[in-house]
Amino acid sequence: MPDLHTVLRSTAGTTREVVLGHDKPFTIIGERINPTGRKLFQEQLRAGDLSAIERDVGAQVAGGADVLDVNMGVPLTDEPELLAKAIRLVQSRTDLPICIDSSVVEALEAGLDAYQGRALVNSITAEDERMELILPLVKRYDAAVIALPNDADEIPMGADKRIELVGKIVDVATGTYGIALEDILIDPLAMPIGADTQVVNTALETILRIKHTWGLNMTLGASNVSFGMPGRHVLGATFLPMAMTAGLTSAIMDARNPQIVESVKAADLLLGHDDWGMAWIAAHRAKQAAEAG
Amino acid sequence: MPDLHTVLRSTAGTTREVVLGHDKPFTIIGERINPTGRKLFQEQLRAGDLSAIERDVGAQVAGGADVLDVNMGVPLTDEPELLAKAIRLVQSRTDLPICIDSSVVEALEAGLDAYQGRALVNSITAEDERMELILPLVKRYDAAVIALPNDADEIPMGADKRIELVGKIVDVATGTYGIALEDILIDPLAMPIGADTQVVNTALETILRIKHTWGLNMTLGASNVSFGMPGRHVLGATFLPMAMTAGLTSAIMDARNPQIVESVKAADLLLGHDDWGMAWIAAHRAKQAAEAG
Repeated sequence: MPDLHTVLRSTAGTTREVVLGHDKPFTIIGERINPTGRKLFQEQLRAGDLSAIERDVGAQVAGGADVLDVNMGVPLTDEPELLAKAIRLVQSRTDLPICIDSSVVEALEAGLDAYQGRALVNSITAEDERMELILPLVKRYDAAVIALPNDADEIPMGADKRIELVGKIVDVATGTYGIALEDILIDPLAMPIGADTQVVNTALETILRIKHTWGLNMTLGASNVSFGMPGRHVLGATFLPMAMTAGLTSAIMDARNPQIVESVKAADLLLGHDDWGMAWIAAHRAKQAAEAG
Repeated sequence: MPDLHTVLRSTAGTTREVVLGHDKPFTIIGERINPTGRKLFQEQLRAGDLSAIERDVGAQVAGGADVLDVNMGVPLTDEPELLAKAIRLVQSRTDLPICIDSSVVEALEAGLDAYQGRALVNSITAEDERMELILPLVKRYDAAVIALPNDADEIPMGADKRIELVGKIVDVATGTYGIALEDILIDPLAMPIGADTQVVNTALETILRIKHTWGLNMTLGASNVSFGMPGRHVLGATFLPMAMTAGLTSAIMDARNPQIVESVKAADLLLGHDDWGMAWIAAHRAKQAAEAG
């Protein structure tokens, strides 16, 4: 199977391209610019204060993010306007590509309209209505899209059903909307291990089967897995290399956490995606220099 | 394929059993009782001072070892006598089973003779002469054995050749010497990533194929992988969960390193080998109590 390459691009300042692929280093999508569970940030956004976003950009760029997720889902705000504003702000501060994250179609459209470059849209499901509303936007703005293999509000607990829904998404996106296979990123669905100790096995099986059936790129919300458990950083730093071994090519994750980012870089090296170990050795030298200085 | 269970046992004091299997938590074999690269330890052993062994037992038991490797390969000593003595000493200090480690057949025999329980013998290769010399001992003492799929002095760099040699080992060990399939542990051969960035991919492919072809248990020297690279602990803590995802069921490793041991325990939880996360949560509580106290 040929390697599918998803190309994301930012063209607001210097053009910057990020390429996802099974033969490429892992793509770290910073999850931080998201008001969910951040009360103070929500209040600031409601008051029109976007300064926290600038700090979040800086911390995630410093931590090693390749792409930044931007979600402005704050109740009682004009989400399309806020998301467009946030995207312009982020693009004025960094040339990393953006993952435009909303459940509101109008907000996705406003975000795509404001964004300069080739964006990633987060997300569709296998529901006909979501695909009908969002996939034409993805096509019109020449974006890539994250698709979750769930139907209605139910998340399938088995890999078979997820694979069936991926098949449906691929057929509709490519057949009906003319979206290229390489622009579809599947989220194999990583659920909290604390709820059921088989959920990671199911995610790993789903990842393996998607890789072998379509060779698609994939991403998932890595922090979900450790939700409710102690030792969350260790669980995150352990889970990602396991998922990368199965075929995960990116994750929406805490790019500010050195332990988790370092484990991803180590897995890149071990999987042969860091020629001569140059990136690993350079990062180690920089760390030593920082500790000495 | 039914799960093959390798049973190791110590019967010197309280009987203690360790079971390796693809449906079991990972088995940590402590690597520390080995004079290779430990100059002071070599001198002490030559002078008949075995006190360092007692410290090594304590540190590895505290760190979370399930089995202890014992190697007494010191030049200019009577290795069979020294190994037998070391094994009796270790068994007087802990009820963990032992992995008897020597390249000298007479030392393996003396070790097996001194050991009380069901040992693991480290190791044979696919060479006829090594199998002829060691497998009858494994059978006579009802032990399990680690087998390396290499021929003469050459280590095959591809998975195909390794799988072919595993086939030969399995045929000879079961067919000629009547050793049960579950008592053969294959070392899939983990080489230093610094020498060639494809070696871990080769090891992972070998592990997957051994699991799917025979369902055999496996072990390897985990510290090899990071040899010569900076950030060795992170590489070790990253590599083992990856290898466990492919099907590795144990490793000879640094059981005194909390970061590496914790990553193995995290991977046990994520792979569904820690029911309800009880072991993970208990370990976290113990750590918190230790930090508070």
